[in-house]
Amino acid sequence: MLIDELTTEESLRLLARTSLGRIACAQGAQPYVVPLYFAYDNYYLYSFSALGQKIEWMRANPLVCVETDELVSSQQWVSLIVFGLYEELPDTPKWQLERAFAVDLLQKRATWWEPACAKTIVHGIQRPSVPVFYRIRVVRISGHRASSEPAALPDTRPSITDSGENGWLQRILRQVRGRH
Amino acid sequence: MLIDELTTEESLRLLARTSLGRIACAQGAQPYVVPLYFAYDNYYLYSFSALGQKIEWMRANPLVCVETDELVSSQQWVSLIVFGLYEELPDTPKWQLERAFAVDLLQKRATWWEPACAKTIVHGIQRPSVPVFYRIRVVRISGHRASSEPAALPDTRPSITDSGENGWLQRILRQVRGRH
Repeated sequence: MLIDELTTEESLRLLARTSLGRIACAQGAQPYVVPLYFAYDNYYLYSFSALGQKIEWMRANPLVCVETDELVSSQQWVSLIVFGLYEELPDTPKWQLERAFAVDLLQKRATWWEPACAKTIVHGIQRPSVPVFYRIRVVRISGHRASSEPAALPDTRPSITDSGENGWLQRILRQVRGRH
Repeated sequence: MLIDELTTEESLRLLARTSLGRIACAQGAQPYVVPLYFAYDNYYLYSFSALGQKIEWMRANPLVCVETDELVSSQQWVSLIVFGLYEELPDTPKWQLERAFAVDLLQKRATWWEPACAKTIVHGIQRPSVPVFYRIRVVRISGHRASSEPAALPDTRPSITDSGENGWLQRILRQVRGRH
């Protein structure tokens, strides 16, 4: 298996064609990670959520990290990390244009399941559904791609192969077990 | 759509039958989230990784959060959050039993793709592959389940439905657009 870095352009293209990721925020030393549906445009990930722990933590500490991936098999996948900044899009005159843009962009997505904005019954009590619109500014982005076919690479690159689907895992485990 | 909480028992069963999640750690106020393959046993998630940013951050701050989910459709999914503590399983006499247990448990998984432990070529240079074995102690767990079929619930429960697959999203977006 060969793992290589994505270029910034490849990473941004992945952001543009996907909509599901996971977002991590932190309060003090405690991180928190939840699923995130987003719409990407021009170095921003747009999304919305009901008011809750995630929004409260991001309001207090806007440093976040978003991960997204495309997993085809154990030998073929792309994974992407975004370090970003939370920016809320409140319903005020100052943010009117950005908020309207976000709403239009989000409306283009068809199959979202953002739990926080659905009517939610928890222990028989309906939770209020008040959407908070926000965006994550992309500050730094890095991605990796795994492929199982070094033969497709130019001959000048090192040819790295494992023997079989899980050859690398079996090799490591044999090494570790050999010590016990 | 109806969203309900999982019991602790249901949450632990989900941990036991899945192996892919995302783990968030934090350094100072900066969270970091990456994919995680794990094997669950008795309130611990076992995994391994090459030495890198994730391991270094968890060594310095053992507070982590793991998210995993089973997504069938926008109306049918389960999502789970674990707050936990990082514990390394070093290759020393003190940790020999726990480490051997982890290796045996991890070996039962067949299709892992942990990038950090594969031979990795980054810009033509092979990265060293030194596995660090560790486990996450489950301190707190919470999960939610979404279902689209309130008719399957007992008659005594509130019947909450949206009109159509994305009725809730369309309703929210109409409300927000009406303000602009």
